[in-house]
Amino acid sequence: MRTLDARAGAASLGLDDVQDLWKRLAAARTAIAADDDAVLREQVALSAIAAPTGSESARGAHVASRFHALGLRDVHVDAVGNVLGVRRGAEDEPPVVVCAHLDTVFPEEADVSVRRSGARLDGPGIVDNARGLAGMLALARAIDGEALRTRRPVLFVATVGEEGGGDLRGAKHLFANLERTPACCIALDGAGDDRIVYRALGARRFRITYRGAGGHSWASYGVPNPIHAAGAAAARLASLPLPRHPRTTLSVCRIGGGISVNAIPEDAWLEVDLRSSSGEVLAGCVADIRAAVHSAAREESVRRAPGTEPLSYDIAMIGDRPCGATSDHHPLVRIASEATRLIGRSPELVTASTDANVPISLGIPAIAIGAGGRGGGVHTPGEWYENVDGSLGLARALTIVVAAAK
Amino acid sequence: MRTLDARAGAASLGLDDVQDLWKRLAAARTAIAADDDAVLREQVALSAIAAPTGSESARGAHVASRFHALGLRDVHVDAVGNVLGVRRGAEDEPPVVVCAHLDTVFPEEADVSVRRSGARLDGPGIVDNARGLAGMLALARAIDGEALRTRRPVLFVATVGEEGGGDLRGAKHLFANLERTPACCIALDGAGDDRIVYRALGARRFRITYRGAGGHSWASYGVPNPIHAAGAAAARLASLPLPRHPRTTLSVCRIGGGISVNAIPEDAWLEVDLRSSSGEVLAGCVADIRAAVHSAAREESVRRAPGTEPLSYDIAMIGDRPCGATSDHHPLVRIASEATRLIGRSPELVTASTDANVPISLGIPAIAIGAGGRGGGVHTPGEWYENVDGSLGLARALTIVVAAAK
Repeated sequence: MRTLDARAGAASLGLDDVQDLWKRLAAARTAIAADDDAVLREQVALSAIAAPTGSESARGAHVASRFHALGLRDVHVDAVGNVLGVRRGAEDEPPVVVCAHLDTVFPEEADVSVRRSGARLDGPGIVDNARGLAGMLALARAIDGEALRTRRPVLFVATVGEEGGGDLRGAKHLFANLERTPACCIALDGAGDDRIVYRALGARRFRITYRGAGGHSWASYGVPNPIHAAGAAAARLASLPLPRHPRTTLSVCRIGGGISVNAIPEDAWLEVDLRSSSGEVLAGCVADIRAAVHSAAREESVRRAPGTEPLSYDIAMIGDRPCGATSDHHPLVRIASEATRLIGRSPELVTASTDANVPISLGIPAIAIGAGGRGGGVHTPGEWYENVDGSLGLARALTIVVAAAK
Repeated sequence: MRTLDARAGAASLGLDDVQDLWKRLAAARTAIAADDDAVLREQVALSAIAAPTGSESARGAHVASRFHALGLRDVHVDAVGNVLGVRRGAEDEPPVVVCAHLDTVFPEEADVSVRRSGARLDGPGIVDNARGLAGMLALARAIDGEALRTRRPVLFVATVGEEGGGDLRGAKHLFANLERTPACCIALDGAGDDRIVYRALGARRFRITYRGAGGHSWASYGVPNPIHAAGAAAARLASLPLPRHPRTTLSVCRIGGGISVNAIPEDAWLEVDLRSSSGEVLAGCVADIRAAVHSAAREESVRRAPGTEPLSYDIAMIGDRPCGATSDHHPLVRIASEATRLIGRSPELVTASTDANVPISLGIPAIAIGAGGRGGGVHTPGEWYENVDGSLGLARALTIVVAAAK
């Protein structure tokens, strides 16, 4: 098998080579299968440490202690809370980054205890991303630098701020501060063993606030009403034309304003979620959003009574997830597809928003994959994991990482 | 002075008669002026008893004890919490109703203590309606049934539920349950001594809720978005044409919906405040509101993805304040105007929403007037009262009530 220079993007990789590697990893695969229950216990332990976006330090400390115990080098927590550890390679080459996010969508006060019954685990965050984290630790154990050593270093990173308002904060900081541009990145996110996220779904999120003088709904009638403008903005945004290819979505997901049924409020606001895998489309839609927001303010302000002030507004960007794609012909995607077939599954190339968005947007080949097993109810209190062929999914992930780092 | 049959509406009343009555009330006016400080103390005591709309019983009990102490007959609390007491008249005639509302717009936890410095009182509710209640008690003291006796009985009522969501609940119950149709009604509301509310500003208030399946803003995109419909409804309502005469207002005063920036919510809602003194205009606007709400649901639903359900919606009426007017030629209005002039003020005939809305809508002549003095910051924590000519304002109110009950 030839060295994969993932950055080159054009290096051809014989699929026979992946099959060959798969065979040579037999001992490592056997060890992972034997570790199956230990991985589940790790998954349970991680899931039971609350890690809301922005408060990942306790879970991060747990991962750091495991990195130390596994003998990774340069284990440290960076300025934003990412936990890093390196498994050195045979050569001083740009590393392969393997990452899994620490944070969950659940608030501090949520009950994150896990109920285990056999191969079934119930608990918020048990899949997303306790499975990804436990899977990353399993890979760090398997690639021990002795029995299994790669040419490139493998940089393992538990990232903060992947979910919602975290806005990929950990991955953004990581890739902005690495000394060397990595060869590629593989993000472990949730369960599953067939999907390969190769397109990065970008997002722009805005909070738009309209402000006016407010007043009594009868006595002060005629002052422009921020709710009327917010409503008009929502209506205009809802009717913006969006391309079908690439699929692009725009939703007003939150709206609010007003303190009583007989008062014109001083402000009203809405939050907008825009998604596309095309940066060009996102940029065009952002311009349309700004125009719609302005028109809505103007529409309400021109109706105002003489002597009253027009509405003001501001548009705050509250989310910015970069986009892009790793070519489906890229060796990394082809390796991942072949490894998926080797465990008897059909690879499914999909678009999603993960830590991989950041390297993809920077031109670094990246994918996100599941860490094996099945799950559901992600982002709900009823989240569950079932360890169906979980170690096979990890064997797939190991094959991809080792092939990429070879 | 002729007997005023207020219900007849056409009885002519010589303004000389009011001037004559004013002179004959000299002793009562002197007594009210002498009581000035006692009235202020009563106002402070009433204001310091929390009485949010729906929780007026403590303040009501205080008023009932005063009614007893003043020797009113048939003192009782009715089914909704109104406190009633009668001063018998010389004849068994339909009564004149004098009312003042108990409730305030302030929540239970608000600090309703009063700071007094001389003739200035500071405290939420000190004007609206501690002044009206204290004024009503002063009138019940002055019309003692002996030194000052009217031909008609005077029914004094402290009402519940006048403010906001109370929706004139007390007055509605009162006038729906009186044994005899009263001759007329005089509501004491707040401070002041020149305004005469003779037109009842009607209101209809609606809470409109849109509902859909909801879902993830990317994965479930295509399900109709209740916020988009609520926004479109607000925009349509904001642009409905409204008559200038009679002045009519329509405001969306509250809007809400959504739980996170990356989820299409299952519901969104808005609250609408519609006001006019014309019942016909109100009815027309209500039809327009229903049409706009329907169109907004349809507009969003037609955009939905195949296989998804259209939005549903409902329109709940959360407020219904009846409207109408007492003719400005009606003796009650002419008496009130003349009494205003007798204290050296210029009568100002205005439109407002008060307890008087209810009798007016039932064809019972009614007005609302202030109970003297000056105030400001009504409905805010900074509400204040200054006892400028307060007893003169009460003398005006006494003159109006005695003239109406004579």
